[in-house]
Amino acid sequence: MLTLLRIAEIVGGILIGDKDTVITDLGSLKSAKASSLSFYNDSRQSQLLSECQAGVMLLRQQDSELFSGNKILVGDPYLAYARLSQEFKDVSFHYSGIHDTALISPTAMVDDGVWVNAYSIISGNSRIEKGVKIGANVRIGANSIIGMNTIIEDNVVIYPGSSIGVGCCISSGAVIGASGFGYAPSPHGWEKIEQVGSVQIGNNVDIGANTTIDRGTLDNTVIGDGVKLDNQIQIAHNVQIGENTIMAGCVAVAGSAKIGKRCRFGGRASVLGHLEIVDDVTVYANGFVANSIRQRGEYASMIPVQKISAWRKTVANINRLNRLAKKIKSFGET
Amino acid sequence: MLTLLRIAEIVGGILIGDKDTVITDLGSLKSAKASSLSFYNDSRQSQLLSECQAGVMLLRQQDSELFSGNKILVGDPYLAYARLSQEFKDVSFHYSGIHDTALISPTAMVDDGVWVNAYSIISGNSRIEKGVKIGANVRIGANSIIGMNTIIEDNVVIYPGSSIGVGCCISSGAVIGASGFGYAPSPHGWEKIEQVGSVQIGNNVDIGANTTIDRGTLDNTVIGDGVKLDNQIQIAHNVQIGENTIMAGCVAVAGSAKIGKRCRFGGRASVLGHLEIVDDVTVYANGFVANSIRQRGEYASMIPVQKISAWRKTVANINRLNRLAKKIKSFGET
Amino acid sequence: MLTLLRIAEIVGGILIGDKDTVITDLGSLKSAKASSLSFYNDSRQSQLLSECQAGVMLLRQQDSELFSGNKILVGDPYLAYARLSQEFKDVSFHYSGIHDTALISPTAMVDDGVWVNAYSIISGNSRIEKGVKIGANVRIGANSIIGMNTIIEDNVVIYPGSSIGVGCCISSGAVIGASGFGYAPSPHGWEKIEQVGSVQIGNNVDIGANTTIDRGTLDNTVIGDGVKLDNQIQIAHNVQIGENTIMAGCVAVAGSAKIGKRCRFGGRASVLGHLEIVDDVTVYANGFVANSIRQRGEYASMIPVQKISAWRKTVANINRLNRLAKKIKSFGET
Repeated sequence: MLTLLRIAEIVGGILIGDKDTVITDLGSLKSAKASSLSFYNDSRQSQLLSECQAGVMLLRQQDSELFSGNKILVGDPYLAYARLSQEFKDVSFHYSGIHDTALISPTAMVDDGVWVNAYSIISGNSRIEKGVKIGANVRIGANSIIGMNTIIEDNVVIYPGSSIGVGCCISSGAVIGASGFGYAPSPHGWEKIEQVGSVQIGNNVDIGANTTIDRGTLDNTVIGDGVKLDNQIQIAHNVQIGENTIMAGCVAVAGSAKIGKRCRFGGRASVLGHLEIVDDVTVYANGFVANSIRQRGEYASMIPVQKISAWRKTVANINRLNRLAKKIKSFGET
Repeated sequence: MLTLLRIAEIVGGILIGDKDTVITDLGSLKSAKASSLSFYNDSRQSQLLSECQAGVMLLRQQDSELFSGNKILVGDPYLAYARLSQEFKDVSFHYSGIHDTALISPTAMVDDGVWVNAYSIISGNSRIEKGVKIGANVRIGANSIIGMNTIIEDNVVIYPGSSIGVGCCISSGAVIGASGFGYAPSPHGWEKIEQVGSVQIGNNVDIGANTTIDRGTLDNTVIGDGVKLDNQIQIAHNVQIGENTIMAGCVAVAGSAKIGKRCRFGGRASVLGHLEIVDDVTVYANGFVANSIRQRGEYASMIPVQKISAWRKTVANINRLNRLAKKIKSFGET
Repeated sequence: MLTLLRIAEIVGGILIGDKDTVITDLGSLKSAKASSLSFYNDSRQSQLLSECQAGVMLLRQQDSELFSGNKILVGDPYLAYARLSQEFKDVSFHYSGIHDTALISPTAMVDDGVWVNAYSIISGNSRIEKGVKIGANVRIGANSIIGMNTIIEDNVVIYPGSSIGVGCCISSGAVIGASGFGYAPSPHGWEKIEQVGSVQIGNNVDIGANTTIDRGTLDNTVIGDGVKLDNQIQIAHNVQIGENTIMAGCVAVAGSAKIGKRCRFGGRASVLGHLEIVDDVTVYANGFVANSIRQRGEYASMIPVQKISAWRKTVANINRLNRLAKKIKSFGET
């Protein structure tokens, strides 16, 4: 619950309207009520804007005339909205205090102000810093470090020796530090290579539900500060991801790949092992990175669906591209 | 354990044979024994049928002569078999009653006849309706509703505020209602947009193991009645899926996509965000939907494997398609 | 902690150097210290080798001159390293003994020397053999068998009736034996086909984090001895995988596919249902197997990313391949 005065302060905007109006929730241009904060940054929605019932609107100075209600003028309405949305976060998600059934090793160092919900286990010599919130049925392995204010939601597993920075959020079902996938062929099958490295996660990293990040073979798997990973992402052993890189759902990165800073990966993009991708690379959804990318820019390799009858012909033609290419060459020679 | 008389009643079929014979299990045409029920609906298997040892066979009237044992004539043997299979479900999967170690908030409303296995947690103000069965190590967040007779298997996480209909089944490891993936770029990295919507799941919905369904940004992520989702599916925030749509394993749907009724998605199909797909669309396995689909029908974009030597040439040709196309054009001009 | 003498014995190699030197850890050519074991099997790293500080080096006889420190000559340095790495495994990962909060059914048969961590549940009539280690928050369903020395890590779910061999390792979040995905269409939606088979896993099988293996419809889903599955793999009902086949992360195998022995699948390869793949087939990363493969060899169908501008033209050309092919044909006819 915030007054317009307080909202304007938080985002550093210019308030036009009643400073004492109270906002209790967030709304889209369609759903906002008198109690809601909303924002406008897409000119295709000007009609919705003019009819919106929001108690206050975040928008740019040049759009000010388009909305007659209370408004706050800001340079980047979407960013301002993002910051304010955090004020409306439902803190009741988390159990406050340490539940009686949480099992905390006597050798674990748990700071004041840590919350741990029921049936979670914090093993020996781990260190849980101030303000950390841990959900239910979580396992924090021995010798791990969880940085200040990090949130670990229900049913997460953190393997021993993992290090997680401050201000991170790990969603349910994520598994951090399971064994990397390494085997040597032998005459009798596959011989396991023990993975004795661990996982090192920076500050302000978000990790989505059921995402897996394996521990390193000898050195660590390293996730840089500010990295955002969506759900069901697979990060193999020894991978390094640079600061502020963001990956949408179901991305997979194979072992020992090294990814730069500020990269963006669309959903289900894949990266083969032992590659290097420089900073500021965008890979579109379903893109398959089979070689190192040494130049910043945007890359893609997805083929959109066609009607099945057309697609069957396309596949047939792809399969005879070699013959087609030869034919074309033969024409050139005549 | 059912008599043939009872089986014929359940499926509304015509019994030819001994009404008192007792069936205790299910079998394929190959594996069925005298105690087994089996079915026949594929003419390529007529040889197997004639040799089958099943105690009773479900088949069409026109196939009646092909089997000499007890039989029940039905219009759709596969559907009749599906219904009967449910009678043979192993109910011992579930713990009956509420286990001593289940933690149920005093403000949760739990109906009679609810089962909850060990170490599960039901948080405040949630409502668990009659006949619900909850496995072990499950977390049901605050303010959630679980409809009548729904089954929630072990290690599932339901985030606060989720609503799940009647007669659903959620398999182990599924995560319902984790935060949608929304960030605004800022000069210092990615600013989180809090996701204050929730997840609303209709009646008779099945959700596979380790599938994730994120909560909405402002409004809800909505899964319609009768939807069937296989394992490891990722449904992003604000997605809407229409009634009776079915998705095979590993499908991914990006944020705010709107999918119609009775659609079918093959394994690992992908749908980009903010698209619309009309009713009765089929997308084949690995199909990549990059644009809205406005016409019912079947769509595909997968390329089957070739031998690596042929494929390397194919990729080379795909990569020089632009030059090939120009060459062809130049021939046309001469 | 091993002496060089003991190390040479384990791998059956020829020790050149001080037999009493003690090794306490593993290192790469770059990171190895005087306390470390390392190995050399890649001639591109000869420079690193000559500068390496390792306490002992595993290498081939012909490379012996390249390293001046303690060394052990072996036929296959990588395989020898793999075997030795297992001696350095961190056994502190596992809780020793049976935790007070572990719930073990009175009808479960648990051998001596089994370890079970907190809040795990072992249901009725299951059999847990000697040396098995079970993590925290694990559910072992009724009537399951877990073979000798198998490791089941935290938050794994094993459904009732599953059978797991000796010497396996199942990583966190894996779900074994959830319902296969089978429905019959009816006028009112999808009718569930109960899956009454189970999952049968051989000896020395590794299963990665958040991998799912569904139980069979009538017969079992079968994973052969020595199979290695990475994280987030989806194995559907009735699949059979032959001995020593290995699959990298995110592979998906649809229902009733039958895969041979010693096959290798790159990350995110897909296999359609009801196919057969013979022994010794390699499918490259992202390869899509749409038909049975009857000949051993290597197969692929992935298209690597291009710059987005080039790719857009490529997609346009793929979409008009049918027209291009016709044009080429028309030239041939003139």
